[in-house]
Amino acid sequence: MAEKKWVYLFNEIEQAEAYVGGDWDNVRGLLGGKGANLGDMTRIGVPVPPGFTVTTEACNEYSLNGKFPDGLWDQILVALAAVEKESDKKFGDKKNPLLVSCRSGAKFSMPGMMDTVLNIGLNDETAQGMAELTGNERFVYDSYRRLVQMFGSVVLEIPDEAFEAPMDEFKEAKGYKLDTEMTAEDLKELTAIFKKVVKAEYGTDFPQEPLEQMRLATQAVFRSWNGKRAIDYRRAENIPDSLGTAVNIMTMVFGNMGNDSGTGVAFSRNPVDGTKELFGDYLLNAQGEDVVAGIRNTEKIATLQTVMPEVYREFLDIMGKLEKHYKDMQDIEFTIERGRLWILQTRNGKRTARAEVAVAVQLVDEELITKEIALKRVKTKQVDALLHPQFDPTELKKTEPFANGVNASPGAAVGRIYFDADKVVEMAEVEKQDCIMVRPFTKPDDVHGMLSAKGILTSEGGATSHAAVVARQFGARAARKAFQFGVPCVVGASAIRIDLDKKVLVCGDLTLHEGDWISVDGSTGNAYVGQIGVVYPDLNEMKDLTTLLSWADDTAEMEVWANADYPRDATRARSFGAKGIGLCRTEHMFFETERLPIVQRMILAKTSEDRTAALNELLPFQRGDFDGIFEAMSGYPVIIRLIDPPLHEFLPSAEDLMESIITKRIEKIADYVNGKAIDKELADLEKMLKEVENLHESNPMMGLRGVRLSIMMPEVVEMQVRAIFEAACDVKARGFDPKPEIMIPLTGHVNELKRIQPRLVEIAKEITTERNVKIDYLFGTMIEIPRAAVTAKEIAEVAEFFSFGTNDLTQMTYGYSRDDAEHSFLVKYVEEGILPENPFQVLDRDGVGQLMKFAIREGRSARPDLNVGICGEHGGDPSSIEWCHIIGNNYVSCSPFRVPVARLAAAQAKLDHPDPEDRRTIVHKK
Amino acid sequence: MAEKKWVYLFNEIEQAEAYVGGDWDNVRGLLGGKGANLGDMTRIGVPVPPGFTVTTEACNEYSLNGKFPDGLWDQILVALAAVEKESDKKFGDKKNPLLVSCRSGAKFSMPGMMDTVLNIGLNDETAQGMAELTGNERFVYDSYRRLVQMFGSVVLEIPDEAFEAPMDEFKEAKGYKLDTEMTAEDLKELTAIFKKVVKAEYGTDFPQEPLEQMRLATQAVFRSWNGKRAIDYRRAENIPDSLGTAVNIMTMVFGNMGNDSGTGVAFSRNPVDGTKELFGDYLLNAQGEDVVAGIRNTEKIATLQTVMPEVYREFLDIMGKLEKHYKDMQDIEFTIERGRLWILQTRNGKRTARAEVAVAVQLVDEELITKEIALKRVKTKQVDALLHPQFDPTELKKTEPFANGVNASPGAAVGRIYFDADKVVEMAEVEKQDCIMVRPFTKPDDVHGMLSAKGILTSEGGATSHAAVVARQFGARAARKAFQFGVPCVVGASAIRIDLDKKVLVCGDLTLHEGDWISVDGSTGNAYVGQIGVVYPDLNEMKDLTTLLSWADDTAEMEVWANADYPRDATRARSFGAKGIGLCRTEHMFFETERLPIVQRMILAKTSEDRTAALNELLPFQRGDFDGIFEAMSGYPVIIRLIDPPLHEFLPSAEDLMESIITKRIEKIADYVNGKAIDKELADLEKMLKEVENLHESNPMMGLRGVRLSIMMPEVVEMQVRAIFEAACDVKARGFDPKPEIMIPLTGHVNELKRIQPRLVEIAKEITTERNVKIDYLFGTMIEIPRAAVTAKEIAEVAEFFSFGTNDLTQMTYGYSRDDAEHSFLVKYVEEGILPENPFQVLDRDGVGQLMKFAIREGRSARPDLNVGICGEHGGDPSSIEWCHIIGNNYVSCSPFRVPVARLAAAQAKLDHPDPEDRRTIVHKK
Repeated sequence: MAEKKWVYLFNEIEQAEAYVGGDWDNVRGLLGGKGANLGDMTRIGVPVPPGFTVTTEACNEYSLNGKFPDGLWDQILVALAAVEKESDKKFGDKKNPLLVSCRSGAKFSMPGMMDTVLNIGLNDETAQGMAELTGNERFVYDSYRRLVQMFGSVVLEIPDEAFEAPMDEFKEAKGYKLDTEMTAEDLKELTAIFKKVVKAEYGTDFPQEPLEQMRLATQAVFRSWNGKRAIDYRRAENIPDSLGTAVNIMTMVFGNMGNDSGTGVAFSRNPVDGTKELFGDYLLNAQGEDVVAGIRNTEKIATLQTVMPEVYREFLDIMGKLEKHYKDMQDIEFTIERGRLWILQTRNGKRTARAEVAVAVQLVDEELITKEIALKRVKTKQVDALLHPQFDPTELKKTEPFANGVNASPGAAVGRIYFDADKVVEMAEVEKQDCIMVRPFTKPDDVHGMLSAKGILTSEGGATSHAAVVARQFGARAARKAFQFGVPCVVGASAIRIDLDKKVLVCGDLTLHEGDWISVDGSTGNAYVGQIGVVYPDLNEMKDLTTLLSWADDTAEMEVWANADYPRDATRARSFGAKGIGLCRTEHMFFETERLPIVQRMILAKTSEDRTAALNELLPFQRGDFDGIFEAMSGYPVIIRLIDPPLHEFLPSAEDLMESIITKRIEKIADYVNGKAIDKELADLEKMLKEVENLHESNPMMGLRGVRLSIMMPEVVEMQVRAIFEAACDVKARGFDPKPEIMIPLTGHVNELKRIQPRLVEIAKEITTERNVKIDYLFGTMIEIPRAAVTAKEIAEVAEFFSFGTNDLTQMTYGYSRDDAEHSFLVKYVEEGILPENPFQVLDRDGVGQLMKFAIREGRSARPDLNVGICGEHGGDPSSIEWCHIIGNNYVSCSPFRVPVARLAAAQAKLDHPDPEDRRTIVHKK
Repeated sequence: MAEKKWVYLFNEIEQAEAYVGGDWDNVRGLLGGKGANLGDMTRIGVPVPPGFTVTTEACNEYSLNGKFPDGLWDQILVALAAVEKESDKKFGDKKNPLLVSCRSGAKFSMPGMMDTVLNIGLNDETAQGMAELTGNERFVYDSYRRLVQMFGSVVLEIPDEAFEAPMDEFKEAKGYKLDTEMTAEDLKELTAIFKKVVKAEYGTDFPQEPLEQMRLATQAVFRSWNGKRAIDYRRAENIPDSLGTAVNIMTMVFGNMGNDSGTGVAFSRNPVDGTKELFGDYLLNAQGEDVVAGIRNTEKIATLQTVMPEVYREFLDIMGKLEKHYKDMQDIEFTIERGRLWILQTRNGKRTARAEVAVAVQLVDEELITKEIALKRVKTKQVDALLHPQFDPTELKKTEPFANGVNASPGAAVGRIYFDADKVVEMAEVEKQDCIMVRPFTKPDDVHGMLSAKGILTSEGGATSHAAVVARQFGARAARKAFQFGVPCVVGASAIRIDLDKKVLVCGDLTLHEGDWISVDGSTGNAYVGQIGVVYPDLNEMKDLTTLLSWADDTAEMEVWANADYPRDATRARSFGAKGIGLCRTEHMFFETERLPIVQRMILAKTSEDRTAALNELLPFQRGDFDGIFEAMSGYPVIIRLIDPPLHEFLPSAEDLMESIITKRIEKIADYVNGKAIDKELADLEKMLKEVENLHESNPMMGLRGVRLSIMMPEVVEMQVRAIFEAACDVKARGFDPKPEIMIPLTGHVNELKRIQPRLVEIAKEITTERNVKIDYLFGTMIEIPRAAVTAKEIAEVAEFFSFGTNDLTQMTYGYSRDDAEHSFLVKYVEEGILPENPFQVLDRDGVGQLMKFAIREGRSARPDLNVGICGEHGGDPSSIEWCHIIGNNYVSCSPFRVPVARLAAAQAKLDHPDPEDRRTIVHKK
């Protein structure tokens, strides 16, 4: 049996591929991400300093046995010889010494977790030779003292302090403030001091033998895999312990060897806006650390074109080569050593959401990637971020944040600060103020305030604190109006001090009192004094995004519709690309000031005549509402849900009525004396109170609402259907193409539909016949009661379409009253992982999702062309959208502002699940 | 092709069987029930007057074509000749005329719906001959005038009135009051008058030709199949129109031919108590009508033994033969004509519930039927009736009902009468009075009163009226304490008049006022003045029932357990044959007077120490409760459900607290003047109010209860589990065998169990280890949240048993809050057939039942020996029990008084579904 290969030269990448069977993920497993990458660049002809990688397998052997596996050291020596040959230097040579770095590199990046030793190969002799060779003694001894220090710290585990203390003493003695003030001689002296530290702390001398340095450094990297920090990190990130780390030994190159040398970082495109241009900074005659330290002003990468035109040309070539190879914008580290360009690292460049979209669209245009890849690469949360209301950038430029913390939940919030949950609720719900809740940290007692606040700011806690979890997962109520999930939240803004007794927020010289305005940016973690303007992005100005989303629509199997109650919402929905209205709630219209008294009269009516009279007054209003929506959505389906909420919601509360009655009674005593009579008013109030008490339910969520109400009092829905069809006829007469679909809510038993649907169809026929207008319409139902899902087959025999009302379906399936649960146990459940997520935000696939899946299968078994949608809040959540795709929905419907996110999510779902088993029976109606 | 056989002589039954392929049901289809029965009796040698049956096929042909099919009349003539021969009489013969009856007889009995003509064959001539032959002219002319009247009415469709008016005139003219006063001559005269009526009304003479009489009568019977009454009846009973009726032509026999003749009815066993003895009445020298009319006192059948010993012997033989043949107690009609016994009809005898059980057990002992048949024959509602609390029979004997109506919902109720729903609720709920609600009829507005009443009495309406439906299907709440389903109800007691304004009930001379006591027997429809004692039956005194139920236990696959919260309930459950406790609710114990303040202290505790201190006080109480139950149930499993209801249920209502606070505040003003201070009391009340407001939930049914509460506040269940295991150890030390099973309520996600169960198991282990006692125990969960059913597989990986809480499961699956729904739409839903039944009473197989079925299958896929039970109210309902058997439950648990019903239902379920598919994986643990 041939000896196992533990060591791969960077140019042996194909051998590594062959060994693992060709899979690139396995190459990364064997060589680590960095090693695989260096080998890969070498293969495609990018100038990488020569070097080799010791495999993760070697690391695992070392971890197991505490020693190098047989053959490893010999293979390292062979590889080293090859590197020497290629670099034309010799390791340990006095004249032309080869220096190398020794870096860890695991399969998955573990930034800062593991060890690195630079400048291996320097010792008293090679340092001298190198000084002669480079003519730069200061640079050589600075490198040497760094080696001793790093080696001492990393390999010999000497505390950093042991080096830092004598260095500080030395500088103080010399009167230096900065490291740069030290001369070559100083550094030589400091190297000697450091060597003494090693001897004193470790007991033996700093190893002068370069091979010994390399051997010990390699072992140290291996050991660092099982260091506490690394293990903790892996636990947190779910990285298996079994992977091990590779070790990369690479020729050192130096950017500080004169003005023909330099170093820098560069992006292949602009990472802010995505423009196709080289973007980055460099310094001539400098080391990487100098760029980072910011002591000298860096140059824009474009200037390299005049400074070193040939290098610049090569640079452009290499960037092109890398982008072509990696099919994405690259972020590289480079060094120019005496006119020669070396690429030390490349990776996909981090970028803004805007740049992500722009680059993806460019790469498709350049035929580097397919549309499918572009669609998968852009994340839904990036689209979300682009479309979130944001602070006006021009205003932001004129101000500075007074504090910064962890950006725990994105979005822009402006409001008055309050320090107490009850006060927030009072100010928000009663006084209708925009509130920002400010607390040192939050507890379950604070949740009701958090749900009423527009934003949250805390001085303590991190991204997984109570405040952060609640803001992200439970803020939906307050956030709904801002068209986003979660409420903007900044936590751990540690510069601020909050005095709950005095009700003040102090930050340096700044003192803010209860009621003062602030603006909180949950996307950046910044908090500002005063009110900063919020801008709503316009999709039409985002050409790249529009392009991307048009591809999304071509790709997705599901359509994206929107929930809209008014014509203006419908118009907005269309502008965001909605292909229909999935939910138009009719009852919102009942609450409008001029209509509510009529609605109340209708509810209080004791005779059918009185009720009909009130409904006849409402009819023109409803017809007008539908008219506008049909016009805005001409040619697209509009699903109108018939009245759903319990009647008591349209009446004042018993408490308010009681108060009014008491007031009136007291007035009455006075008026009695004055001879005035208010008996009629009192009687009306008392009648209203009586009715409110009659309508009282102990669990209104499960009471007389939806279709149940329509069966008990059919006159209301009859009026609504009349309004729908009269409006449709009117709109059609004006040349538009209305497509009404009528949705009956809360069905639990098919007999409910059998009872109510035929009389509504009759009304539709009557009106269209009378007007002699042909209207395409459907009658369908919401699936929001578990029993409806279970008996979907029977229901689909009557209902012509399904729409999942997943808010209620989640409530009933879990047996959670959302309002109650979010104020009590649900927060704890999510915080402590009893539930993975708030099921009202992210659809519960195992429970609710299974009922949906069953309902679709059963429903289509009775009606193969059954259109199925979703109109709960989940319709705007990417994970939930994916599930809808998997189980075979025809469309998802969400709030207009979330339509773009949903369009991308629908496309991604299709790409990730091109042919889900449960999709077999789908027939699109259009 | 041979001509179709339209006519079968009674002794041609085997030909009929052969024609239809041997199936008895098809024989009844061909010959009708009566015809098949007469043939069957003829075959086994029972003396049936000779005759023949014209088939239903002939009827259908007649209906189709409006005329007799070809060959029918010829076949009738042939059959008639055979009858003439057998009876040794001739049809139309002047000397010895054969008279026949012509009766309809469909496959299913349609009592009173169709027509009969007796004495066919009489005319002026044969009447005279017959009079000579019998020497009884009066009898002959009475028969003749009856023939003319019946023929006129049935065949010629002359209104009854046309005969009754002249007969009344005739009697008046003669000064007669009774028909019996008429002489032979009178009847002869009357016959002549009736013949004139026929001529006048119909236009032609009464047909003198006997064959013409027979032909017309047969056609009239055929036609009656499509009469309006018959069609309406078939619609109501779901009898297909296509069946048609047969016609039975049978030799007339006469019991009034002297003292060697007679007629009567008899049961083969005592139908009241089941004793094995001939039971019945007869009259010598009389016709059937005379027995019914009650003009003469009938003789007990036993006297026949001395009067006609030979006939009596034959009677016994025939009874034995019939019981052996029909394998059930028989109810026969017989006539003795000149010493010869004829059996005119036999059928299975109607009997009391007590007799049903007794006869079934006797027949098994006599090896006439198997135990299985006995178990299927006794109906669960009969066992229910036997075990219902009933009015004391000795008291009933001493009184008379003041009114009688329709027995709409069984059971005995005693209470004060109230005429208004609000008043009933007030008296029942606040004053704790037993109330009987009395109304002319009820409406949806009355439901809240009906649910609080012990009984209901109305003067209008029938068995399907609103009052009847609500009483049967929704009275569960009031009835629960009386261990029955539904509330006793009598409707349509038309003799009473109710004056709602004056609040009085008037019935003849009787006037009852609001608050007066009455007793209502919903089983008999009787209402009594005053309070009649109610007796609770003792199962141990019902030997036959005990025997039957022991067979049921041997037969059933499921066990029957009981729901019991206290030791006395457990003892009762055992006495009724429960094999375990399926639900012991621990929170009832918290409500007891001495404990409630401690429970409240525990709830209000602000520190863990205060809470623990309160719980430590509760611990001994709980331990004592469990101690008694374990002792009573030694050797049998006892499932204890940990705390379930929301905490606010243990605190006073906000309204009550508010009232107390206002009162105290007013007191305080006074006391302030007097120098007393009640600040502390006020502060306590205000603290309590604050807590009650904190605990307020908008939908408490779906809020912080069950396992959710335990996760938020684990101290309570920890105390409960401690109490359970300390009690178990104590009881075991006394030599009993406790088998505790701990049930966690309201699980919706397996993680809830994963969170709470291990710490409870830990406590169990700790106590049993410390005491060094081995206790067999299990930890399981209720399946009452739809999501628990959907994710049953995961849940069964942690839970060791399942118990369906079908009350909550029905609430959540339908999205119905039971309290709200039963007061509003649910009654209408059931009344109007939108739902077939109240799903809280009879399990909804299509919805809730499917979730249960799924849960069992999934649960057992994870844990094959998973024990599954049901502890909702459905556990006592036979239809629901059947479903539990079908889907593979191991047991059902119900209230102790329903255990016997459930035992029979479980056996019947097994007999009807011996091997349901879903039962494959069941493994009984015991």
